[in-house]
Amino acid sequence: MNKKDNILIIGAGLCGSLLALRLAQRGYKVSVYESRPDLRITDISAGRSINLALSDRGFKALRLAGVEKKAREICIPMYGRLIHDIEGNTFASNYSGRADEYINSISRGDLNGILLTEAEKHENVTIHFNAKCTSVDIENTIAHFKSYTTKEEFSVDADIIFGTDGAGSVLRKSYYLEKKFLFSYSQNYLTHGYKELEIPADKNGKHQISKDHLHIWPRGKYMLIALPNLDGSFTVTLFLGHEEGEYNFKELDSEEKIKNFFQKQFPDALEFIPNIAEEFANNPTGALGTVKCSPWYYKGNTLLMGDAAHAVVPFYGQGMNASFEDVTVLDEVLNEHEGDWSVVFKAYQERRKQNADAIGDLAVENYYEMRDHVANPIFKEKRKLEMALEEKFPNDYFSKYSMVTFNENIGYHEAMTKGRAQDKALLNMVAHHDLDAISDLNEVLKKVQEETNEILEEDKVAGLK
Amino acid sequence: MNKKDNILIIGAGLCGSLLALRLAQRGYKVSVYESRPDLRITDISAGRSINLALSDRGFKALRLAGVEKKAREICIPMYGRLIHDIEGNTFASNYSGRADEYINSISRGDLNGILLTEAEKHENVTIHFNAKCTSVDIENTIAHFKSYTTKEEFSVDADIIFGTDGAGSVLRKSYYLEKKFLFSYSQNYLTHGYKELEIPADKNGKHQISKDHLHIWPRGKYMLIALPNLDGSFTVTLFLGHEEGEYNFKELDSEEKIKNFFQKQFPDALEFIPNIAEEFANNPTGALGTVKCSPWYYKGNTLLMGDAAHAVVPFYGQGMNASFEDVTVLDEVLNEHEGDWSVVFKAYQERRKQNADAIGDLAVENYYEMRDHVANPIFKEKRKLEMALEEKFPNDYFSKYSMVTFNENIGYHEAMTKGRAQDKALLNMVAHHDLDAISDLNEVLKKVQEETNEILEEDKVAGLK
Repeated sequence: MNKKDNILIIGAGLCGSLLALRLAQRGYKVSVYESRPDLRITDISAGRSINLALSDRGFKALRLAGVEKKAREICIPMYGRLIHDIEGNTFASNYSGRADEYINSISRGDLNGILLTEAEKHENVTIHFNAKCTSVDIENTIAHFKSYTTKEEFSVDADIIFGTDGAGSVLRKSYYLEKKFLFSYSQNYLTHGYKELEIPADKNGKHQISKDHLHIWPRGKYMLIALPNLDGSFTVTLFLGHEEGEYNFKELDSEEKIKNFFQKQFPDALEFIPNIAEEFANNPTGALGTVKCSPWYYKGNTLLMGDAAHAVVPFYGQGMNASFEDVTVLDEVLNEHEGDWSVVFKAYQERRKQNADAIGDLAVENYYEMRDHVANPIFKEKRKLEMALEEKFPNDYFSKYSMVTFNENIGYHEAMTKGRAQDKALLNMVAHHDLDAISDLNEVLKKVQEETNEILEEDKVAGLK
Repeated sequence: MNKKDNILIIGAGLCGSLLALRLAQRGYKVSVYESRPDLRITDISAGRSINLALSDRGFKALRLAGVEKKAREICIPMYGRLIHDIEGNTFASNYSGRADEYINSISRGDLNGILLTEAEKHENVTIHFNAKCTSVDIENTIAHFKSYTTKEEFSVDADIIFGTDGAGSVLRKSYYLEKKFLFSYSQNYLTHGYKELEIPADKNGKHQISKDHLHIWPRGKYMLIALPNLDGSFTVTLFLGHEEGEYNFKELDSEEKIKNFFQKQFPDALEFIPNIAEEFANNPTGALGTVKCSPWYYKGNTLLMGDAAHAVVPFYGQGMNASFEDVTVLDEVLNEHEGDWSVVFKAYQERRKQNADAIGDLAVENYYEMRDHVANPIFKEKRKLEMALEEKFPNDYFSKYSMVTFNENIGYHEAMTKGRAQDKALLNMVAHHDLDAISDLNEVLKKVQEETNEILEEDKVAGLK
């Protein structure tokens, strides 16, 4: 492989900019084209801080690219959920029984800015903004763009093209439309959408509610969450049906209806959202979709990565982490197969696809779990038990959430398979009071492990995955 | 609802022609447009008889439209599978322990012809051939066509449009491209494709192998099947990897390789396929895909039915049956809600979607089961046990296959859920020798039922579907 090969990356979001940085470190000549303006100069989120959950899989990739420390400096640790009930009572629930396991709130824009700046420090990287990709000729590895500044159309002829252009990927669309191969593809929307709101900082620039938690107001058919920002504000997200249910986005079309909805359902949150009606009207309602596809690559010419290959719904807090982990996996594959991109791309998909599918499924599953099961006493009892097991056996017990979020050396698929079996074992033992008479946690652990293994074994005999 | 509403049906295949017939019987004015020539005049299968499996769900719909008898006249009953091993030995395996439960081989073209002729007997039905739909304006219910005979383009302005235009549906594509609503969509291909071949009749026009069976030559990574035709021939289908495995379609590119492959793997079939090399080269290699989407309808304007809404792979023999069942369900919904198409379409999807998804999943599952598990001794033992249970308890025991194939009053989803639990119970009991000491079938049945119910209950507690 000629390291002077021209690599084109479409999309300078989180995945594209980390990929550019890592490929530059490996010596490649990289050009990045991004449709939006440079977010370090132009505030493209229209005044709102948008934050995301960063955890161990993300950190592993950032570490590989030498930017973990810079990222940690802008993280706000969230040690657990803080559940707000309808009366305004709050209940804390840690993410893990191990004190060093927590997730972090981080500004999407600030982190993206760090990655762009680090990438640009390499002289073999150039980043072009305001250049919208319109289509990709995957056979000849030529990408077509339109400049938002000059309004002119232009083409870039590259040796290799990476599509990190997000859930609405133009490279993926070219796969679909060109019909050069059998392209398995799915886009699946939930009946819920989302809208972002803000709890501003207080007069002294401080957080008005605990900044050490991810706040959740679960209400069955809808839900509010809030993640802290460094400037003292919180980004609040309302998840609500587009058109279904007693309350829904379509129906909430007046200031009165909006305020009435929040007053009834989220009174303690409403206190802190002064501009609710205005924000509700002005901020867009987003769709919640999962994208899966295969193949991700065409020959040794092009490869989809990040959301472009596997967009997920946000309910496991893993979207960014999964995209960053893509870069880790590609780097591992390059260590083994560098020299032939067609081999690299095939090996990459073989190693990555099942795990990407799994996090997509886990995220949808968590949507139902957060909506429907949070108030379920059996689920609550199970969670208590898991906390106790993790505290007492920090090296031997890992909940599904812990495996997914804090164990970057377990693939998502294994975490899902084992985690589901473990959940099923625990929920059934709790429901049938099998553990009521056991006071020794050692015995509980043993029983959970036995039952989990039996469930996995029975699925295997039945030919189930 | 004005029964003189102009109803436009795009596609006069099996689903479209049955739908036209049934809507005509209900008094609607129906125009059908079909891209292919009239198959009653032009032989569009290029000399090959293509047949399909017809079973109880299909018959129920045909009965509703008064054409069951005509269809039965051209059916060839297949009472079971006849498995051919690599040495040429054969083993019969019935589809059910009940003698009156069997599937039927039927010519796609002949059945389609019957439906077209019956539909055309109604003066409120007109059928137009050689008219290819190019796009649909779903807001204004206008479909655009190109005539293959005059080469002219024309439009049809209808009140209601049904898309029964198959797996490559143009109406569905219009949903996808118009982006008027969040359209969940998936197309998933197997790594295997298929190719049709022929075992001709003998000199006397007789079948050369048993016509009372569906013949299967299972070989793990590939498989041959054969269904009888009325003219004494068999339509043979080879399922094989497109590019993967020791043998695959890409690699079998010479007469020598093809004959060598069949000589090694299917010697007893090869004897009866005189034109193998020619047919292999001339007949196209087909793709095996599953299509799911939602919503199927737009307002009260348009509705997708049959393969256009839910194409499935052929491994459960249910594709045509599922499409016909769509017509049964639509008819039921019309009985309840006739008068408002938007209510009808919504109610139809609510009643039908979960079942359509289920048969798509069941068909893919059977692909793996036929490929990987046919030779598994535990699966064989289970099948023997199920035959015995069905024979002894014809009113109390139904295998998954029987529920799906012969029980038109159980929805596909219920058949899948219950059938999977039952399979899992049986396979584990067989694997663990739980039944070895039990000679009384009554006791076996009781144990199977208990275990099945426990599996369903445990899944429910775990929040699994």
